[in-house]
Amino acid sequence: MSEDDDLLRRRFRVMGKHSPLFYDRPLHLVRGEGVFVYDQKGRAYLDVYNNVPCVGHCHPRVVEAIARQAARLNIHTRYLNDLIVDYAERLTATFDDPLDAVMFTCSGTESNELALRLARFLTGGQGIIVSDFTYHGNSETLAALTSCFPTPEPFPPYARAIPIPDPARDKRPLSELADIYAGHVRDAVRSLQADGVKMAALLIDSFFANEGLPAPVPGFVKKAVEIVREAGGVYICDEVQAGFARTGGAMWGHQLTKTTPDIVTLGKPMGNGHPLAGVVTRIDSVDAFGAAANYFNTFGGNPVSAAAGLAVLDVIKDERLLENSRRVGEHVRQGLERLKAKHSIIDNVRGRGLFFGLELVKGDAQASPATAEAKRLINIMRDKGVLISRIGRHDNILKMRPPLVFSTDHADMLLAGLDEALASL
Amino acid sequence: MSEDDDLLRRRFRVMGKHSPLFYDRPLHLVRGEGVFVYDQKGRAYLDVYNNVPCVGHCHPRVVEAIARQAARLNIHTRYLNDLIVDYAERLTATFDDPLDAVMFTCSGTESNELALRLARFLTGGQGIIVSDFTYHGNSETLAALTSCFPTPEPFPPYARAIPIPDPARDKRPLSELADIYAGHVRDAVRSLQADGVKMAALLIDSFFANEGLPAPVPGFVKKAVEIVREAGGVYICDEVQAGFARTGGAMWGHQLTKTTPDIVTLGKPMGNGHPLAGVVTRIDSVDAFGAAANYFNTFGGNPVSAAAGLAVLDVIKDERLLENSRRVGEHVRQGLERLKAKHSIIDNVRGRGLFFGLELVKGDAQASPATAEAKRLINIMRDKGVLISRIGRHDNILKMRPPLVFSTDHADMLLAGLDEALASL
Repeated sequence: MSEDDDLLRRRFRVMGKHSPLFYDRPLHLVRGEGVFVYDQKGRAYLDVYNNVPCVGHCHPRVVEAIARQAARLNIHTRYLNDLIVDYAERLTATFDDPLDAVMFTCSGTESNELALRLARFLTGGQGIIVSDFTYHGNSETLAALTSCFPTPEPFPPYARAIPIPDPARDKRPLSELADIYAGHVRDAVRSLQADGVKMAALLIDSFFANEGLPAPVPGFVKKAVEIVREAGGVYICDEVQAGFARTGGAMWGHQLTKTTPDIVTLGKPMGNGHPLAGVVTRIDSVDAFGAAANYFNTFGGNPVSAAAGLAVLDVIKDERLLENSRRVGEHVRQGLERLKAKHSIIDNVRGRGLFFGLELVKGDAQASPATAEAKRLINIMRDKGVLISRIGRHDNILKMRPPLVFSTDHADMLLAGLDEALASL
Repeated sequence: MSEDDDLLRRRFRVMGKHSPLFYDRPLHLVRGEGVFVYDQKGRAYLDVYNNVPCVGHCHPRVVEAIARQAARLNIHTRYLNDLIVDYAERLTATFDDPLDAVMFTCSGTESNELALRLARFLTGGQGIIVSDFTYHGNSETLAALTSCFPTPEPFPPYARAIPIPDPARDKRPLSELADIYAGHVRDAVRSLQADGVKMAALLIDSFFANEGLPAPVPGFVKKAVEIVREAGGVYICDEVQAGFARTGGAMWGHQLTKTTPDIVTLGKPMGNGHPLAGVVTRIDSVDAFGAAANYFNTFGGNPVSAAAGLAVLDVIKDERLLENSRRVGEHVRQGLERLKAKHSIIDNVRGRGLFFGLELVKGDAQASPATAEAKRLINIMRDKGVLISRIGRHDNILKMRPPLVFSTDHADMLLAGLDEALASL
């Protein structure tokens, strides 16, 4: 039995057989640095998947900040501490008015839970609208709202799921899509109202990552939010994937849609892997909810998390990673368009900044999803030393979302690998 | 304006006025070491409150483990990694059969959420029984089940709250209390059944910390669990407070009641402040749930958390902290009994190991709760440089729960401080 087989057997025995693992042959990692991870034999893999280590695996400034603060003080927010207040100010300063306050949590799940509590408290309603192919967390309430994979919890009667426009798949005129899909939001609101359910929130990812990174339909989010607000609900924007300069166009995905949310939820990249997350909203909302709910989070907002979060903001600024995301993202996009011209399996190129996808389809008249090919491709890429994944309703859209320190050289490695892998399909 | 006033004003503006703070004059901390924390003026405070830094503030072995692993690799469990499997094996080995598997999370809230999902999946029921003065987390579902402070979420129709026996306050014969209070559990089961709600779980803290650390009533938990299991439910034991050698009698609080839970939830002390938590149960439960739920937790079970968790287990073993908890806890208890003989405001001494309480009552015939005095006392103690808090239905029970490296010398500092503070009331 190989060393990996033995580790896998031990893992199955103590953590279960269904704890998710990537690839047909799971990857056994021991080290990470920048955009590379290394397996136990010392082989390097270009990481084009992980957004959590957003400023690069084991970035020395983040590591040093964590190590220094862990040695100094790690305690909850029932005592005063400078770092967490400094971080809260620095973080909220990156948002548009009137978003000026933050509540800290440990994970995207905790952030979306808190956002739903806050939305229901502020509106007095229970009704939630989500997309019909999404995921916002693993708590019971969020598992019930999950629409992109089955969960034991039934989809709740207080919720409705709406389709998200994907111009690559819906061939009606682009200029009509915003109104058509806003109509689905209106239908969802009316359906809830017909059941006596008052609106609480529209909860969406500003980048529609699980939905497969469809090209933005101008005006859709704005119209959807107007309909929800008119019905008394609020707009919760999940920035767990799109946030922290990922899109290259702005620090936050929602800034690209010119529609400021009432509540923003943060997670994954916030501490470069340190469990740090949060909810950004208006101070009057925090104060009203705080008075009623006595919200406290033991690990949320501890000074080590704050040190990690501050270091991430510093690196994004000092290494100009928003600019890098835009510039390298554009380089990747051009390369992907060249691959599209060469490989007929590619139907379209998606995404922006350092979050991009390729939709793979079969050569038939319906352009049916090339799901098996996408799976084979990510395994071929893994064997070539490049880590990617796939998303979308048919799991036929390649998901590429590297650390933000991805350079044009790294991009060229990815593009060359994809070219070979596509040719070998 | 003082430096602290300015920090407080900034905190209010960006984190809200109701984010909880201890003491009439909040404490501004900058450093921690062992059982001491230090304010910005360098003044030391004996920490008799915090169980999260269970092996001591900034324990060098935990700090070093975190720093080393953060510099090496921090990634999720979709790749194989040795450390998390090693930790899962080490952790589950401290539990009795048949508890042999673990799912990792980031907080006690996430653990109790996952435990409820698991219980409902395994039983096909929805019914939850909790104590009538408790708290298990800050998610929407757990906030609704909260009974020890108000939340905006109503107590749910699928739940019932039972009283927990407190022999110091219920003067009926001790030998009858287990049956009397098990009767409340039976009533709760029947009430749920009458409403057509099938049992899912009894969710209790094995030490009844929020309830005020009542002296254990032999047989109560065993009988309660039997009734719940007969009705098709499972027993979830919340070890977020009582676990990790806290009680001095066993690694886990539930081991003192000779009743092995179906599901155990872990949190606070698990990573000595690093956000690490988990759910321990049987591997067949994990596999069945995993197949249906596709549970994944981005930060849960990352190698830095595993390194922190392993270091905590190592220190507990190498520094013999279970033995220390028993031995020093006994020393404290004897000292508290002497204070009780001297100060009539003390009605009784509570707790065991390094988790102890003093119930303060007025001199009237009803021994009514000395709530205001308890509040004054913890503020006097803060000014003397000793950090404690209070719990219980009337907030009149002093809550003392120091890091496990608390020595008899530290205990004598606490006892001397309490003696003076009680005299000055």
